[in-house]
Amino acid sequence: MSRPKLLALLCLAVVCAPARAVEPPPLAIAIHGGAGVIDPAKMTPQHAASYRAGLAAALDAGYAILEHGGSSLDAVTAAVRIMEDDPQFNAGRGAVLNHDGDAELDAAIMDGHGPRAGAVAGVRRVRNPIELARLVMEKSPHVLLVAEGAEEFALEQGVALVPREYFRTEARVRELEEARRQAGELKAAAPGPTGTVGAVALDGAGHLAAATSTGGLTDKHRGRVGDSPIVGAGTYADDDSCAVSGTGQGEFFIRQVVAFDICALVLYRHLTLAQAVHEVIRKLRHTGGEGGVIAVDRGGNIAMDFNSVGMFRGARDSRGRRDIAMYRDAQ
Amino acid sequence: MSRPKLLALLCLAVVCAPARAVEPPPLAIAIHGGAGVIDPAKMTPQHAASYRAGLAAALDAGYAILEHGGSSLDAVTAAVRIMEDDPQFNAGRGAVLNHDGDAELDAAIMDGHGPRAGAVAGVRRVRNPIELARLVMEKSPHVLLVAEGAEEFALEQGVALVPREYFRTEARVRELEEARRQAGELKAAAPGPTGTVGAVALDGAGHLAAATSTGGLTDKHRGRVGDSPIVGAGTYADDDSCAVSGTGQGEFFIRQVVAFDICALVLYRHLTLAQAVHEVIRKLRHTGGEGGVIAVDRGGNIAMDFNSVGMFRGARDSRGRRDIAMYRDAQ
Repeated sequence: MSRPKLLALLCLAVVCAPARAVEPPPLAIAIHGGAGVIDPAKMTPQHAASYRAGLAAALDAGYAILEHGGSSLDAVTAAVRIMEDDPQFNAGRGAVLNHDGDAELDAAIMDGHGPRAGAVAGVRRVRNPIELARLVMEKSPHVLLVAEGAEEFALEQGVALVPREYFRTEARVRELEEARRQAGELKAAAPGPTGTVGAVALDGAGHLAAATSTGGLTDKHRGRVGDSPIVGAGTYADDDSCAVSGTGQGEFFIRQVVAFDICALVLYRHLTLAQAVHEVIRKLRHTGGEGGVIAVDRGGNIAMDFNSVGMFRGARDSRGRRDIAMYRDAQ
Repeated sequence: MSRPKLLALLCLAVVCAPARAVEPPPLAIAIHGGAGVIDPAKMTPQHAASYRAGLAAALDAGYAILEHGGSSLDAVTAAVRIMEDDPQFNAGRGAVLNHDGDAELDAAIMDGHGPRAGAVAGVRRVRNPIELARLVMEKSPHVLLVAEGAEEFALEQGVALVPREYFRTEARVRELEEARRQAGELKAAAPGPTGTVGAVALDGAGHLAAATSTGGLTDKHRGRVGDSPIVGAGTYADDDSCAVSGTGQGEFFIRQVVAFDICALVLYRHLTLAQAVHEVIRKLRHTGGEGGVIAVDRGGNIAMDFNSVGMFRGARDSRGRRDIAMYRDAQ
């Protein structure tokens, strides 16, 4: 190479260096719409397309917020709210019904910046539990409000309650009747249909957030609360480590403190996010629990794993990734 | 040394080995009766003696169970039940009253062997919430039941409910009136009177257990749930690491997943129990949270630490230790 050419290249490198330094920070979002609920034999192409469309709507709405400079907190709130309003998913409208024929809804949100958290459990007349969880975080000194006390708080905050009938969709009433026919209440925590919706995200300011919302188990005992609204079990976020949302058999997730355990493995044992998720899913399998998690770390790495037949999920990031999948083979 | 002498020594070693092997395994129990509730200026000698007697009754009852070959699960249940029935402590009878003038009780129990867990939150008519939490663990597929659903479960299990008036002791009614006079509900999570009762134990079979029970915060919002019934936050036990019960400002304990974090530091970073407890109390102070924890590990080591003015506490083990203390200087 001639000397002028070399000089020109060096100048180019110097000129380009600042451009590298201001490379935009990574953005990432992952969502799930439940695990273990998918029987491939019963999944018609129409059903699959409809679920995929529901997941895509939530994923892209959340990502659009990140792309426009919004917070991870707003992104996960929006993604979960969209799935709450979609009757295909077991959260908000579409929540499964308890033994008394009511939906009893649980949700939690966590802002890794702080960290701060808010959660509600056992609410029966709140259209979007994830928004109420966020109000608990932002407008009260508390983290968790349950049952009628949580609904009173909703009214104090100007949130209109919906009639209980809002949640009694034809499909869920049929499922409850089927469950009642098949067995008693004890089977509720046995392997079978379980679902939740959730989202985790990293925004341009480097903040992580996680949100989870669910109707819990079909035919569940009144007052039963699963892992979704439990900080550390089904939902956790800390800017120093990672953000996690889980779905599956809640009792196993609570006993194992699944979401926090993933972040502890990242922080204390310096595992990669994928290794930590893999390890916790392995432990879950070992105890006989079924389910999956989605997680994102400070570097924008996304990890999604499950030990059930499938997990409705989606991931999108600023490196160009955009996946929607239901089964293990990323289909 | 001559060959016969060497042989004799070897025989002695072989004979003595089984004697060493059957050295009794360590037994240990620690209890707390709340942190941050103790103003030394207001503590009369009569009050102090009465609190000490209450703590001693719980501590010795729990230890007697361990000493007679009972399980750590039975020991922590007995110790907590005694403090629930003692109106001096903020749990069971003696629980503080919420904004509506009702006691709303939370409790959790965890058996490190399994591990298994049971919890109840927001119950208003259960005399011994710790026993109901244990029934949730042993007689249901669930971990957490809340509010009226938990009371329904109590009735299904043959547990008689008590009238709400059972909890309205003169002292707690006066405290609620005082709290209402002083400020609105938002101050509830600010530094101030907070209390809980709890116990952790190691039994002769090497199993760990933890139990926590509380009335929460005076003048709290209806439906507010603190860390006590949250597995990982206020209560955690795993035979592989340790057993922990916390007391203090519950919202901080939930966000930090305090109880599980201590066990994670022991398991993943190989800290001693005392180091892990110290580290987590340091983090609590850093976030502005106030409270304390008691913990025991597989070796029978007990750690108790707090960042509040005092913590009612007691510890007893098979090495001859028996302490009851309220302030930092072990008095």
